[in-house]
Amino acid sequence: MSFKESIHIVLVEPLYSGNIGSVCRAMANMGLSKLTLVAPRIVDGWQEGEKFAVHAGDLLRQRREVATLSEAVADCTAVVGTTARGGLYRQHVRTAREWAPELVRIAGHAPVALLFGREDNGLDNDEIARCTHLIRIPTANDYVSLNLAQAVMICCYELFQAGGEFEAPCEKSPPVTAEQRERLQQLWREAMLRVGFMEEQKADHMMQGFQRIFSRGVQSGDDADIMMGVARQTLWAAGRERPTP
Amino acid sequence: MSFKESIHIVLVEPLYSGNIGSVCRAMANMGLSKLTLVAPRIVDGWQEGEKFAVHAGDLLRQRREVATLSEAVADCTAVVGTTARGGLYRQHVRTAREWAPELVRIAGHAPVALLFGREDNGLDNDEIARCTHLIRIPTANDYVSLNLAQAVMICCYELFQAGGEFEAPCEKSPPVTAEQRERLQQLWREAMLRVGFMEEQKADHMMQGFQRIFSRGVQSGDDADIMMGVARQTLWAAGRERPTP
Repeated sequence: MSFKESIHIVLVEPLYSGNIGSVCRAMANMGLSKLTLVAPRIVDGWQEGEKFAVHAGDLLRQRREVATLSEAVADCTAVVGTTARGGLYRQHVRTAREWAPELVRIAGHAPVALLFGREDNGLDNDEIARCTHLIRIPTANDYVSLNLAQAVMICCYELFQAGGEFEAPCEKSPPVTAEQRERLQQLWREAMLRVGFMEEQKADHMMQGFQRIFSRGVQSGDDADIMMGVARQTLWAAGRERPTP
Repeated sequence: MSFKESIHIVLVEPLYSGNIGSVCRAMANMGLSKLTLVAPRIVDGWQEGEKFAVHAGDLLRQRREVATLSEAVADCTAVVGTTARGGLYRQHVRTAREWAPELVRIAGHAPVALLFGREDNGLDNDEIARCTHLIRIPTANDYVSLNLAQAVMICCYELFQAGGEFEAPCEKSPPVTAEQRERLQQLWREAMLRVGFMEEQKADHMMQGFQRIFSRGVQSGDDADIMMGVARQTLWAAGRERPTP
């Protein structure tokens, strides 16, 4: 079982179904599927929820609704509160990135609940007192309050990244080698002399400019092939004789 | 000048002002302020925008609107495209986290544009062809398309984290020391013997349970003081004599 099956997103007394729909989409984007609402007080009907969930409507419809926080987290080993506020009983808070590996580890063998408070007021002190872990999302000081679904997204994103299941994109062409770079430099040297871009006595100096540009820009075997092709074609087009200046 | 002043969030032909408002809030949460819209095709009026921006309404009203992408990025050194799609000309894409430090570095001395495509269709190939950097946000394979404002949030969040300006929360009480742990163990040993929780001959064994629990749970000087206080008070309440079993 993947750790993702053990992670429950728990929204405490949410107000706007649009936010809940956005939460569902964010969860689906990050491979999570278990949503619990504690005593929802929806003021805008469920139509907005469906609209914002987009392709995560299933997840919205499969939500669990319970009356109390105790019910929501009863079987969970880690109960993780999210808070934007500081204060005496919140000072052992850590960032989402700091907690993510530990939470993924726990979720490997036991249920984990991530709690998100009301849109207007977050989690209250009694709810924070029930948490085994506290998360604060790093923000600018001027505006620390995130939209509910944005807060859920960042936490889910950090868990997903910590889970290490995502295969970072990589180029099909292998990285360029020093040997390819040397051939590239030789071909360009020859071509640039042939077209009269530089004189023999200044060639070493000029080639350092190409070395700098190619060091930064030519990263893959494909890149090297393209730039070597340019030099070969230039040599061909310029013929065997140097053009007269 | 902070790197954040040099980062421009550029939305290409956005459709929904609600999304633009959410983008403004996300930017403000992460300390960014420069928003450019390229040929917006707003279908829902600007009221939603104000609503979703919440306390970032200023940022929404100070947006720049231009007719073409060329105008939007003209003075930018790095033009960073975001894409959920793969394909031949997108394979040198990297994750937001991978690019963030480099983009923060560039933004330290030159303007950087982050491009986000249309809600329904992303950035097209011509637009991708203009980019100096490409970002893909890691997602589950089943649902790779993020809401526009969520995509902006994750990119801004990664830049903010890479910027290193956020001071991670830390506890005021210093970490507990081995010396404090030793005193804590001695006091608990004495108290647990006094109340008859264990016999002298089993004390070494039982104390290993407390050592394990305290090793995990007692992390700060304050934590140690609380648990030592428990032992002292227990010794006092139990008096000098062992209670009879």
